[in-house]
Amino acid sequence: MFAHTVYRTFNTDRRREFVRITDDVADAVAESGIREGMVLVSAMHITAGVWINDDEPGILEDTLEWLDKLAPPSWKEPANEVASDLSPDPGDFRHHRGGEDNGDAHWKNLLVHHQVVVPVTSGRLDLGPWQAVFYAEFDGGRDKRLVIKVLGE
Amino acid sequence: MFAHTVYRTFNTDRRREFVRITDDVADAVAESGIREGMVLVSAMHITAGVWINDDEPGILEDTLEWLDKLAPPSWKEPANEVASDLSPDPGDFRHHRGGEDNGDAHWKNLLVHHQVVVPVTSGRLDLGPWQAVFYAEFDGGRDKRLVIKVLGE
Amino acid sequence: MFAHTVYRTFNTDRRREFVRITDDVADAVAESGIREGMVLVSAMHITAGVWINDDEPGILEDTLEWLDKLAPPSWKEPANEVASDLSPDPGDFRHHRGGEDNGDAHWKNLLVHHQVVVPVTSGRLDLGPWQAVFYAEFDGGRDKRLVIKVLGE
Repeated sequence: MFAHTVYRTFNTDRRREFVRITDDVADAVAESGIREGMVLVSAMHITAGVWINDDEPGILEDTLEWLDKLAPPSWKEPANEVASDLSPDPGDFRHHRGGEDNGDAHWKNLLVHHQVVVPVTSGRLDLGPWQAVFYAEFDGGRDKRLVIKVLGE
Repeated sequence: MFAHTVYRTFNTDRRREFVRITDDVADAVAESGIREGMVLVSAMHITAGVWINDDEPGILEDTLEWLDKLAPPSWKEPANEVASDLSPDPGDFRHHRGGEDNGDAHWKNLLVHHQVVVPVTSGRLDLGPWQAVFYAEFDGGRDKRLVIKVLGE
Repeated sequence: MFAHTVYRTFNTDRRREFVRITDDVADAVAESGIREGMVLVSAMHITAGVWINDDEPGILEDTLEWLDKLAPPSWKEPANEVASDLSPDPGDFRHHRGGEDNGDAHWKNLLVHHQVVVPVTSGRLDLGPWQAVFYAEFDGGRDKRLVIKVLGE
């Protein structure tokens, strides 16, 4: 068994952003030299996620809008009644009592999940034709780390 | 380390459907001959998922109904006010500008997650007594692939 | 490749509870003796999850409240209009026809996801500074099992 570990740091301009990282994952596999195995791609922060989906701008924008309804931020007006009802009942996140304002990003981390595992077959990422890997930033504007761990032979 | 890769293709009659695949996963492990390791079970499409839960028809029907409220399709009437409020604000998915109508299936992929990892212990799937593995189709009626990747020794 | 498997049983006092298990996972890795690899941490029940997030009481309480809106129990009054609208349309879960009352816990399992994979680098859990591992109980008060599977070298 061979292991290869790569770290990537993101500092997005926007507070929320999908960053395509398929090539970073493929590069880590190429560097590792493995032919068969898997790659774990995992955010090292509690306010970010990793999503495998379509690299199509419309669905990415749809998804950020939708996540703001399901997991509403308290630093801007709720998008509508549902977002308002899904907001914390004390009026703001209990989490914000310590001075934070990113409670919604913790919830988005929960919904999106913070990691994926990509199979490696014959030395290549074994993804379907439309599957792209995205780092999903929900509280950007500062350095955030991601680990890419390749295991195989 | 030993690797064994199996692909399965699904073409469901219904647009949305849970298909039990526990035996497919167990068969892949048996074919691999490993005693200790893990199996990655991963949808190769961006409009499907994999869920480990109860093989009880009631909860599966409850869940499909609920997913249509949380991640509402635009090709049928919203189930209620919440589904209407969670729909995209432009009136339809931005994703549909290219002629698609499956934006909701991308969101269901996000909620359900597209993959699971099942531990293998003493040559068997190390699942709890009620855990069954399901392929979760959200945009069926055409060929969709799933990869089962066994790794271990 | 080396494999090490540990089972943990939880019997929480409260019906819903986050139980921090980072040390259990780290102990399993230490016992295994591996330096490089990964650990799968997976609930063996269909009404529990595993979440990696912040060990901060506010966000954990926020999250349990929020999950009760997104995945509303039928054994207590819906928290508000949204929770009421997201409840099953037959009036109660179809799943409850068999005498169960934990349909909401199956949905919370779906949202939180029942497992995580933690990378192991240089013999240690390769987590970010704020990442803690939690067993997420959604239907407690009875024995529930979790498997921790370490793989590596």
